[in-house]
Amino acid sequence: MSKPLILISNDDGIQAAGLRALCEAMLPLGEVVVMAPEVERNATGHAITLSDPLRVNEVDLGLDNVVAYSCSGTPADCIKLGVLAVLPRPPRLVVSGINHGSNTGINVIYSGTISAATEGTILGIPSAAFSVDCWEYPDFDPAKVIARHIAGKILEQGLPKGTLLNVNIPDLPAEQLLSGSLDGRGYALTVHGQADWQDQFDRRVDPHNRVYYWLTGRKRECKEPPNTDDETLKAGKVSITPLHYDLTDHNYLNDLAKWELFQSQ
Amino acid sequence: MSKPLILISNDDGIQAAGLRALCEAMLPLGEVVVMAPEVERNATGHAITLSDPLRVNEVDLGLDNVVAYSCSGTPADCIKLGVLAVLPRPPRLVVSGINHGSNTGINVIYSGTISAATEGTILGIPSAAFSVDCWEYPDFDPAKVIARHIAGKILEQGLPKGTLLNVNIPDLPAEQLLSGSLDGRGYALTVHGQADWQDQFDRRVDPHNRVYYWLTGRKRECKEPPNTDDETLKAGKVSITPLHYDLTDHNYLNDLAKWELFQSQ
Repeated sequence: MSKPLILISNDDGIQAAGLRALCEAMLPLGEVVVMAPEVERNATGHAITLSDPLRVNEVDLGLDNVVAYSCSGTPADCIKLGVLAVLPRPPRLVVSGINHGSNTGINVIYSGTISAATEGTILGIPSAAFSVDCWEYPDFDPAKVIARHIAGKILEQGLPKGTLLNVNIPDLPAEQLLSGSLDGRGYALTVHGQADWQDQFDRRVDPHNRVYYWLTGRKRECKEPPNTDDETLKAGKVSITPLHYDLTDHNYLNDLAKWELFQSQ
Repeated sequence: MSKPLILISNDDGIQAAGLRALCEAMLPLGEVVVMAPEVERNATGHAITLSDPLRVNEVDLGLDNVVAYSCSGTPADCIKLGVLAVLPRPPRLVVSGINHGSNTGINVIYSGTISAATEGTILGIPSAAFSVDCWEYPDFDPAKVIARHIAGKILEQGLPKGTLLNVNIPDLPAEQLLSGSLDGRGYALTVHGQADWQDQFDRRVDPHNRVYYWLTGRKRECKEPPNTDDETLKAGKVSITPLHYDLTDHNYLNDLAKWELFQSQ
């Protein structure tokens, strides 16, 4: 039997250290193909490219047994194009990351890393996103062990159509992270928290006397229930959240029925 | 008391006919300010701009009592920047559209129109997205009546933090649409359906002999429950879906607990 085909993408771009780490983590599990954005595509949300053609180039990542392509599009484009036009057969697994920085709370909505996994799920392929809670260059070795373990479980157990896993890994030394995780106390199944940002725009004037704005801000300090993604990370545990893309606010449907829309005119 | 401030955006860009229609629909309800992308930004998902500065220009839409700005960013950028840096006070309502084409089923995930309303909701402002089920230039007059009625109800009733309304309007002659809606039989409160696309990539070769790909495809024909957004539109009714951005797949959390992660190593 041939090894399972695993498609890897990210939003930090084809040259990111976290992407190489995820390749190394997946190689023992299957045949690895990379299709990643040629440039950084952070905070792209679930954007896809409709108005421009997409370009693909083979890239040598210097990793044995890894075929890699860069793509001019977004993370979601990478997965669509990889699955529908480039891969020789449908992948058994789509993984995205390892992202430099966590994808928790409101960031989940903006994340290109999660968007790649969402696109895999839309195409009917079990998918997961992996992120490390560090914006600098973390030591990816412990995260690789976590990612490989969870990806192996997904290959074994599958995931239902429409469900993906969002995995966030604290930036802890290998020994501390793994000794915690491996006996089952160092991770938690979590819900998507709603921790958001205190956004600000920095208003500046360019050398030609024209105004421009930079988005800036910081994560709002808030206390959420302990079973949320953010609180779990803060507690030094791996957070595993099952996400879906049924956006219906089922709780609110009843309230809305009380509005008596179009009755009073 | 001053009139409520209403912020309007879209993803078809500042010059779209549907944006003008939405301005005209909102003018009787309050003070209208537009901040819309300077170019078409379809299928941008919930992208925001982090790596580039944003530019804003005042634009004359030729509509009395409408202040309008174009922005170099995405629909979500427009709302963030409008609320946090440009408007004189927080708006009471954010509305997006009127989109040329429906935003139902899987399109909700990719939609820039919905992204603008989502961003309003994230910022704590009651928000709604409006779309007409026609990709060409529909007659927006009936849709304007619908949009004004629903926006008026939102101003009256409010919306809970984290909930937005996604309104899709069938492309029907005014008389047929409004006679149905106004006695309460022509609309339905719906759930977000999962109707998706059969995507394909058109592989072409450019004049310099380099390969490129265009995304193409068509909506998959599928039968969904009658309370979904798509089936409601097909039945010629206005579809009103409450959306939220808690992406947790709560149903799957229990199944995931049975995986015995990290137990077997």
